[in-house]
Amino acid sequence: MIPPLAIAMGDSAGVGPEITAKAWKARELHSLAPFFAVGDIRAVEKVWDGPVTRISSPEEAFEAFPAALPVLSIHENGNVLPGTPDVDSARCALQSLEIAVGLAGAGAAGAVVTGPVSKAQLYRIGFTHPGQTEFVAERCGVSGENTVMMLAGPTLRVVPITVHVPLADVPHLLTQELVVAKARVTARGLLRNFGIEQPRLAFAGLNPHAGESGEIGREEIDVLIPAIAQLREEGIDAVGPFAADTMFHPRARAGYDAALCAYHDQALIPIKTLHFDEGVNITLGLPIVRTSPDHGTAFGIAGKDEANPGAMIAAIRMAAGAAQRRAEATT
Amino acid sequence: MIPPLAIAMGDSAGVGPEITAKAWKARELHSLAPFFAVGDIRAVEKVWDGPVTRISSPEEAFEAFPAALPVLSIHENGNVLPGTPDVDSARCALQSLEIAVGLAGAGAAGAVVTGPVSKAQLYRIGFTHPGQTEFVAERCGVSGENTVMMLAGPTLRVVPITVHVPLADVPHLLTQELVVAKARVTARGLLRNFGIEQPRLAFAGLNPHAGESGEIGREEIDVLIPAIAQLREEGIDAVGPFAADTMFHPRARAGYDAALCAYHDQALIPIKTLHFDEGVNITLGLPIVRTSPDHGTAFGIAGKDEANPGAMIAAIRMAAGAAQRRAEATT
Repeated sequence: MIPPLAIAMGDSAGVGPEITAKAWKARELHSLAPFFAVGDIRAVEKVWDGPVTRISSPEEAFEAFPAALPVLSIHENGNVLPGTPDVDSARCALQSLEIAVGLAGAGAAGAVVTGPVSKAQLYRIGFTHPGQTEFVAERCGVSGENTVMMLAGPTLRVVPITVHVPLADVPHLLTQELVVAKARVTARGLLRNFGIEQPRLAFAGLNPHAGESGEIGREEIDVLIPAIAQLREEGIDAVGPFAADTMFHPRARAGYDAALCAYHDQALIPIKTLHFDEGVNITLGLPIVRTSPDHGTAFGIAGKDEANPGAMIAAIRMAAGAAQRRAEATT
Repeated sequence: MIPPLAIAMGDSAGVGPEITAKAWKARELHSLAPFFAVGDIRAVEKVWDGPVTRISSPEEAFEAFPAALPVLSIHENGNVLPGTPDVDSARCALQSLEIAVGLAGAGAAGAVVTGPVSKAQLYRIGFTHPGQTEFVAERCGVSGENTVMMLAGPTLRVVPITVHVPLADVPHLLTQELVVAKARVTARGLLRNFGIEQPRLAFAGLNPHAGESGEIGREEIDVLIPAIAQLREEGIDAVGPFAADTMFHPRARAGYDAALCAYHDQALIPIKTLHFDEGVNITLGLPIVRTSPDHGTAFGIAGKDEANPGAMIAAIRMAAGAAQRRAEATT
């Protein structure tokens, strides 16, 4: 049996505590593996009337889980005000992330699921990474180019090859080396985390109509086609580049296991159009399993019992499945 | 009553003739307004066993329509080989387009619906426009920047502000003047063609997360925000720019009548993800009504009775609705 999963609840003032509690409430309906929350226990109690119990080590979560949400409580400082983030809610988010990653790295937690954080608040307390993904990668000793952000929903998985950069920078950042590196991590990640033996990777063109043979841009000819050829030589089932707009209807999606896209919106528009309330962000290339619900802190509805726990539940299920597969692969 | 609609069937070797015939067959199911096809009658007969009748003028279509597909037959030259385009199938496509546009301009046809053409084949016979839209605009005496390509499906309408250009060119092509011009045409077109009195226009940011206040690109601050402010001063209900990836889930779509996107894939990915078999391309800003099914010639399945007429039927319905509204607005 895998160790219990650690849920870093994210910013105490966001919807993280609420969706964690709601996921626990739905544990039987969705057959969720045992998990425990890491964060300020008061943040949960403030937004939820259900049973909560303090634990002092991950293994206590097994016994506690059936009857109450187990919380490894930290940083009980300041006032917790749902919807009003401050330095304390940010510090709590960062500490819970560090602890959860540490426990997973040590084998005491089966995986890490991270709740939503406010980057603006994190920057105020000296956080310098672009996001949680980069922070987790660094703590795991893996360089950024060897990790991949994948967004996964029930009928689609996408990978943006470039992520949080201005659109104007994408054409020159999209190099053959980067495309090949990201594709290798993706192929390996699909095997390790999803159990897909020979993953099929489909590449989107950068330009409209994938450049129409060079008529509308040359990045397909200069970068993507050589990268795909190189990947195929390595034995990876890579196809494309395809016109991005025709890659995401149901028949097209059936033809691949992951779509590799040139930039952020090309990947995130289709996944959020199709699976807005159930999208999961999974980081590939790490020694630990890390997933996250693919939405923000939603401060505007925090504490109002309006948050949909669907993506958190999906993130927990995906993390448990990946942890289970990895455990089986190593035995 | 509006005049019958003219359907320029597109390339004789593509799926245009088949989907036109299938649309006629479904005329009662979908309450389609009377229409007639313009093209080589042999192209229809080759792929369809149903009733077809030659007409020599649009008004004959009214009497013929209930019992047979009326065809204004032209360019019966060469061999019609479904799936194998040639210069004759391209010449027929171009002539049928010219005739249909001419009839609509003269008031003899209520609207023009254009079937799919092969640009590669059209280029072989000296066609120099980027596509049918630009050709139709020129024949109508309207400049390109004063027309808008809108893609419309049952739950979403999108407009790409820049269209068939390399992605690397988009940041510098996206000027305040262009954004404002396209938005004006869109607002007016939603009123004239769709009967929406005070259209709500939502703008997508160019960069990931709409630039995060300038952290990930400045086009939102330098171009889009001033353009939106200018439009609002003119009385147009314009909002944004929003993070493009969160604009297309069902709740978000309910908040606007059209999404104005910075570039081709940003607009076409969501519409084709959601409405691949029923998307309609409608040209706004023309003196005539022009729609088109939003798919290609599909030479690979031409003549195999596999083509889905859904988008053609939707294009006919949209054209008839727009023609009807315009007729009522001028009486």
